[in-house]
Amino acid sequence: MAESSEQSSPASARTTVRRGAKRAEYERSQMFEILRAGSVAHVGVSTADGPLVLPMVYGITDENMYLHGALANSLLKDGADTEICVTVTIVDGLVFAKTPFNHSMNYRSVVVRGRARIVVDEEEVIAALQLMTDHIVPTWDVMRRPSQNEIRATRIVAVPLDEMSAKVRTGGAVNDAEDEGGPYWSGHIPVTTAFGSPVSNADAGAEVPDSVQQLIGRDLHE
Amino acid sequence: MAESSEQSSPASARTTVRRGAKRAEYERSQMFEILRAGSVAHVGVSTADGPLVLPMVYGITDENMYLHGALANSLLKDGADTEICVTVTIVDGLVFAKTPFNHSMNYRSVVVRGRARIVVDEEEVIAALQLMTDHIVPTWDVMRRPSQNEIRATRIVAVPLDEMSAKVRTGGAVNDAEDEGGPYWSGHIPVTTAFGSPVSNADAGAEVPDSVQQLIGRDLHE
Repeated sequence: MAESSEQSSPASARTTVRRGAKRAEYERSQMFEILRAGSVAHVGVSTADGPLVLPMVYGITDENMYLHGALANSLLKDGADTEICVTVTIVDGLVFAKTPFNHSMNYRSVVVRGRARIVVDEEEVIAALQLMTDHIVPTWDVMRRPSQNEIRATRIVAVPLDEMSAKVRTGGAVNDAEDEGGPYWSGHIPVTTAFGSPVSNADAGAEVPDSVQQLIGRDLHE
Repeated sequence: MAESSEQSSPASARTTVRRGAKRAEYERSQMFEILRAGSVAHVGVSTADGPLVLPMVYGITDENMYLHGALANSLLKDGADTEICVTVTIVDGLVFAKTPFNHSMNYRSVVVRGRARIVVDEEEVIAALQLMTDHIVPTWDVMRRPSQNEIRATRIVAVPLDEMSAKVRTGGAVNDAEDEGGPYWSGHIPVTTAFGSPVSNADAGAEVPDSVQQLIGRDLHE
């Protein structure tokens, strides 16, 4: 997607960004910033029917990424130790060059590769549920805690945050030298992902919590 | 990710939504609406090192999805006829139940599975470039057309839009019967992805085109 300004800090040969990498250094702390700012992970597995990519919600610690959603059930069926790839992408803008060939996007993206582990320890399940719940909007503390049955029914997958790479593109278009003086527009359009006003359920039993109220007008990916 | 309101119209056994599908019908036209509204595709391939998922820009016809980006180069290396999975997800909101176990997201998502084909025909390359360029913002007509060298350097992958499934979740939270009267908030927060004001490059050779000007304040995924 991006042709420029890519950055990566490979933790393994397979997470080395091979294409267009301008800098071979990318701080682990910056990767965590992207993972904290993201909202949805696209999780890939190799199945007998070919690769499958599904969106999942996630939460992170310093060591692990926890995933929750439909794919957890498939992974559970396939058994533990399945190789997965988890990609989190935030679109920050559209980039227009003088020729579509040089168009691009501004974005932040992290690719995590590793072995999926089904979380079975009850304490870890609860901790992971809280991490995922609070990942975008901290609401764990103002909601009913999960029951034993709910905890047992929760399928969570963990992947270690060891093998990661990141790509980041920012700024305007990079035009070819031959396009200097060319009579075409060029530039970029920022894209922001904003929270609207909360809509309460008819069965809501309390006012909108502060943590939710504070989101209005804020950027989901800031 | 979603536990409710999922919809799907499987074109094959492997694109059948197995989990939580409330309706087994999902119109092809609605899948195209989601693909037209999306901005980034997450493309998965099975590699010798395990699955890999990368973000790519795309464009569609009634028959094909065209993809452009780093993965095209990997696919090219692996040869044609590689199985890929392409997932387009649009986040429309966050959904808060009375207990985090029932939290969800409102979203639209399409999963396409099929064999990747490297586009080699020059006319198809040009048509695909135009489709991808105009997918979000029609700018093909106001930019310099690609040169022969640029066309030759463009790696585009096509995947047939035959095997697709979709999931859509809308509306408020679905709370358990046991949570009726529970003193907790519940509801949803809409999320919108808005275009900001265009920022012209220092080397821009024309005013902001109408097609770009018209985006200001509009939703990227409408």
